[in-house]
Amino acid sequence: MPQLRLALAQVNACVGDLAGNSRLVLESCRRAAEENADIVLLPEMVLTGYPVEDLALRESFSTASRRALDALPGALAAAGLGELLVVVGYLDADEVGPRNAAAIIHRGAVVDRYHKHHLPNYGVFDEFRYFHAGDDLPVIRYRGVDLGVVICEDIWQDGGPVAAYREVGLDLLLCLNGSPYERAKGDVRGELVATHAREAAAPIAYVNLVGGQDELVFDGDSMVVDASGVVLARAPQFVEHLLVIDLDLPGGRSPSDARPAGFEVRRRTVEGVEAVERGPVGDPGVAEPLPEEAEVWQALVTGLGDYVRKNGFRSVILGLSGGIDSALVAALAVDALGADAVYGVSMPSEYSSEHSRHDAADLAERTGLHYRVEPIAGMVTAFVDQLHLSGLAEENMQARCRGMALMSLSNRDGHLVLATGNKSELAVGYSTIYGDAVGGFAPIKDVPKTLVWKLARWRDEQACKRGETPPIPPSSIEKPPSAELRPGQLDSDSLPDYALLDDVLDDYVESDRGFDDLVAAGFDPIVIENIVRMVDRAEYKRRQYPPGTKISLKAFGRDRRLPITNSWREHRP
Amino acid sequence: MPQLRLALAQVNACVGDLAGNSRLVLESCRRAAEENADIVLLPEMVLTGYPVEDLALRESFSTASRRALDALPGALAAAGLGELLVVVGYLDADEVGPRNAAAIIHRGAVVDRYHKHHLPNYGVFDEFRYFHAGDDLPVIRYRGVDLGVVICEDIWQDGGPVAAYREVGLDLLLCLNGSPYERAKGDVRGELVATHAREAAAPIAYVNLVGGQDELVFDGDSMVVDASGVVLARAPQFVEHLLVIDLDLPGGRSPSDARPAGFEVRRRTVEGVEAVERGPVGDPGVAEPLPEEAEVWQALVTGLGDYVRKNGFRSVILGLSGGIDSALVAALAVDALGADAVYGVSMPSEYSSEHSRHDAADLAERTGLHYRVEPIAGMVTAFVDQLHLSGLAEENMQARCRGMALMSLSNRDGHLVLATGNKSELAVGYSTIYGDAVGGFAPIKDVPKTLVWKLARWRDEQACKRGETPPIPPSSIEKPPSAELRPGQLDSDSLPDYALLDDVLDDYVESDRGFDDLVAAGFDPIVIENIVRMVDRAEYKRRQYPPGTKISLKAFGRDRRLPITNSWREHRP
Repeated sequence: MPQLRLALAQVNACVGDLAGNSRLVLESCRRAAEENADIVLLPEMVLTGYPVEDLALRESFSTASRRALDALPGALAAAGLGELLVVVGYLDADEVGPRNAAAIIHRGAVVDRYHKHHLPNYGVFDEFRYFHAGDDLPVIRYRGVDLGVVICEDIWQDGGPVAAYREVGLDLLLCLNGSPYERAKGDVRGELVATHAREAAAPIAYVNLVGGQDELVFDGDSMVVDASGVVLARAPQFVEHLLVIDLDLPGGRSPSDARPAGFEVRRRTVEGVEAVERGPVGDPGVAEPLPEEAEVWQALVTGLGDYVRKNGFRSVILGLSGGIDSALVAALAVDALGADAVYGVSMPSEYSSEHSRHDAADLAERTGLHYRVEPIAGMVTAFVDQLHLSGLAEENMQARCRGMALMSLSNRDGHLVLATGNKSELAVGYSTIYGDAVGGFAPIKDVPKTLVWKLARWRDEQACKRGETPPIPPSSIEKPPSAELRPGQLDSDSLPDYALLDDVLDDYVESDRGFDDLVAAGFDPIVIENIVRMVDRAEYKRRQYPPGTKISLKAFGRDRRLPITNSWREHRP
Repeated sequence: MPQLRLALAQVNACVGDLAGNSRLVLESCRRAAEENADIVLLPEMVLTGYPVEDLALRESFSTASRRALDALPGALAAAGLGELLVVVGYLDADEVGPRNAAAIIHRGAVVDRYHKHHLPNYGVFDEFRYFHAGDDLPVIRYRGVDLGVVICEDIWQDGGPVAAYREVGLDLLLCLNGSPYERAKGDVRGELVATHAREAAAPIAYVNLVGGQDELVFDGDSMVVDASGVVLARAPQFVEHLLVIDLDLPGGRSPSDARPAGFEVRRRTVEGVEAVERGPVGDPGVAEPLPEEAEVWQALVTGLGDYVRKNGFRSVILGLSGGIDSALVAALAVDALGADAVYGVSMPSEYSSEHSRHDAADLAERTGLHYRVEPIAGMVTAFVDQLHLSGLAEENMQARCRGMALMSLSNRDGHLVLATGNKSELAVGYSTIYGDAVGGFAPIKDVPKTLVWKLARWRDEQACKRGETPPIPPSSIEKPPSAELRPGQLDSDSLPDYALLDDVLDDYVESDRGFDDLVAAGFDPIVIENIVRMVDRAEYKRRQYPPGTKISLKAFGRDRRLPITNSWREHRP
């Protein structure tokens, strides 16, 4: 029974960085060769990064991607890596249009190509906009073993290429993925790969991207599952990892004559030398999924760190109010970038309480971030006096002066501004446009307030367990939340209890349940009416964002795109 | 030969306003009945408005749309309009999912339904995300004439339902549209309808939405074309219009037995009483397309006015610098909303020239808009002194103080803030985030600078021809453009000549031509390199926009979606 050594390269690609991503591929192959691997599998569109959005439609970009791909076989051969069978995702384009593609490379040449069949076009995916579907079904015989290739969504659809591969007969299915992290989904992915391994009647090697890209976070979680659905190896989440495993595969079967309708079956044999004399590879291990809070924390740290790095920033700046949201964001930023890259600014107004100022300073001391105090009274007064502002306009002006101060310091010193709003307050519009909403990245915009508290407590507990100083001041966690834009203001003046609010938002925003449905589920109609009205009005706030802006409320992968103008209200009392 | 009287209702629907749109349908039918029409044709998704984006996926919304549709037959009958054959677009949903649909209504019942076959998913369209494709091919025999129905993209695709209808035989094809305006496209639409009328071997009645919706403007341009492709009637652009025409149709043919593959052919006969004794209808006329500048002007006025009205604002506010961009936007706003709904604020700094202040005041006097002067020196100084700002940070702070002042006045008085940036400066990043980019609507963000001047001259000439005061001060048109953020600053310090810039932007942004292609076309490589670098860096500016924001550069219908993080540069010198 032939034995193949497989290396799954779970890597962090950057959209558009063709040169850097090519280096990543070469470096992964070099490391795989050191482990005496036969096959190296890289993720979906690793050469271009994912998602490339409208860059896919730009001819000069798809040409650049194809050139980068064309350069790979030679570069691999020149580096003495030509004997590896390398499967790599890239952006292809032919006379039909752009393709989400995989190339199979061996001995200095592209042996075959696969174009993704199923193009997801829901949630965060828009692939039907960018790519044309393929119908390839390549079967590569390599050292007596028949290999097939599919890409991501191809295994989320029943039937399709997996079922077709079963018909033509396969010893191993290679699956390239760009599959984003979603919170609290259980092991959907593991179960899916197992189901389709059984469907294909062959093991599946599943490799995924890792790292943050724009609004998405890829968690890796690459794995190898045998034909009966048992997980043989699994990579840890949120880190780059080379998962190397020896597979004993049946191989040597006679080619089937099956020609499943609608598929372009191509059989090729790739000459492979016998493996070098090699000892057994170490146990690749089956990494356990992270516990809930740890998983979310890593997702947030990864998303924040990569956004900053991939956009070429080296430091971040944020306002520290002494409250829980800015404290959590500061702790995330310190974990992602190190304290020396994080700049906190306390910007007290006349309404800021003494304990808030103290909590902000306490946080700075606990985390070691750079800290300064810039009172905003003079700035606010200049506007309020000249324009005769009061009430809401005056409250907003305080938040806006803080936003402008942060942007000025960003302009002056080159930091990226972080916005500190959480999902609950953004959902109900409890924030100021051009004020606390200012920033290039909002690390916790997908985190409901109740989870903010949970994560803060969890992070402090972790520190205690490790004998470190807990980063977040207990007082920031315990005190009742307040925007402090007028004397004695509390969130609870305007909003329901956060536990209830988050419960309703989860149903209304995440699960798309309507008003009638929520009432039927037993919620108090008056509470629902109030929350639904706030959410529907918050969508309206986008009227005053920069023209053309669409703000989406996204929960680790869920996208929500509404028309800017929208007269429809879920419930009109 | 049966004669049918057709009424095409070119109406302005509002997304989400099911009640208002239902009233629009009923009112159109009432007017059509007054003209003794037999058939009333309304546009694509007129009941929900178009585009509804992710509202389509919300079950409570599709249920509300179906309820609104279900209420129509009874309401029509109750209003004595039951004899009309009414064809109306709406959002349907069945066990498969949401559908872009048309209902055929007669005598208090829905006679048949059509689900759109071809779902466009390019440019501004995302229909593959929202709808499932249909395969219906209903043929309605009404007073001896065989009628078919298609929706918009269905006639932009060769083959498809139009070809299938030719096989089954048709006397008249009814086409419902939500087709946005695009600039300078020639008569693509007219030629297309003519081509497909010949393909269908039947006249086509083509009805389109009119009005602004979010970032789109629908121009109407409804028409009736005979089977040989001759335009018989055409509605004027950018206004609501009921186009009524008498058609002599062959009718009475024997039903064909053809059953084109992939289509669900359904034949129905609708009982129709003979038409009342009626005189001939007046000549519906064939409206000429507007001349170039008039057409663009109307598109901008329509887009601006409807954005303000559909979002529930009654007035707008903008900064008046004395420059051409803000002058043009002010003139557009006055044309769209009337001078009494437009508030202009001059916000001079220490760098503002005397002639700029004069030009702003002159504009206010010419247009009659509300005018006030708010010097920003005190606000700027409060920031600059406390935060020790200079250079770019100080320049940006001036623009930001203006943005904050406008937002405060918006908060206080309820105006929508208009941003005044043009397409050329936005494309190269010559603007300040949270500064001049502040606003809920940017009327000229799709207008290149050279067209800004052209439109300003054209508008003033029109005023002269009508013996009115030209709204735009000649000095604003003639003087060299400047941001006036430092002494003696001119746009030409930082940017190439606008004629050249716009030429390159048109190729690079609109036509997606790459660097090599532009050099091959004869542009100076150094100029191209400079412009391409500015555009690629401007995409980067989105890093500091509100998190999750995607800014698109759209040219009257062209959408461009790029990843926020994008390390790819068209040209790296």
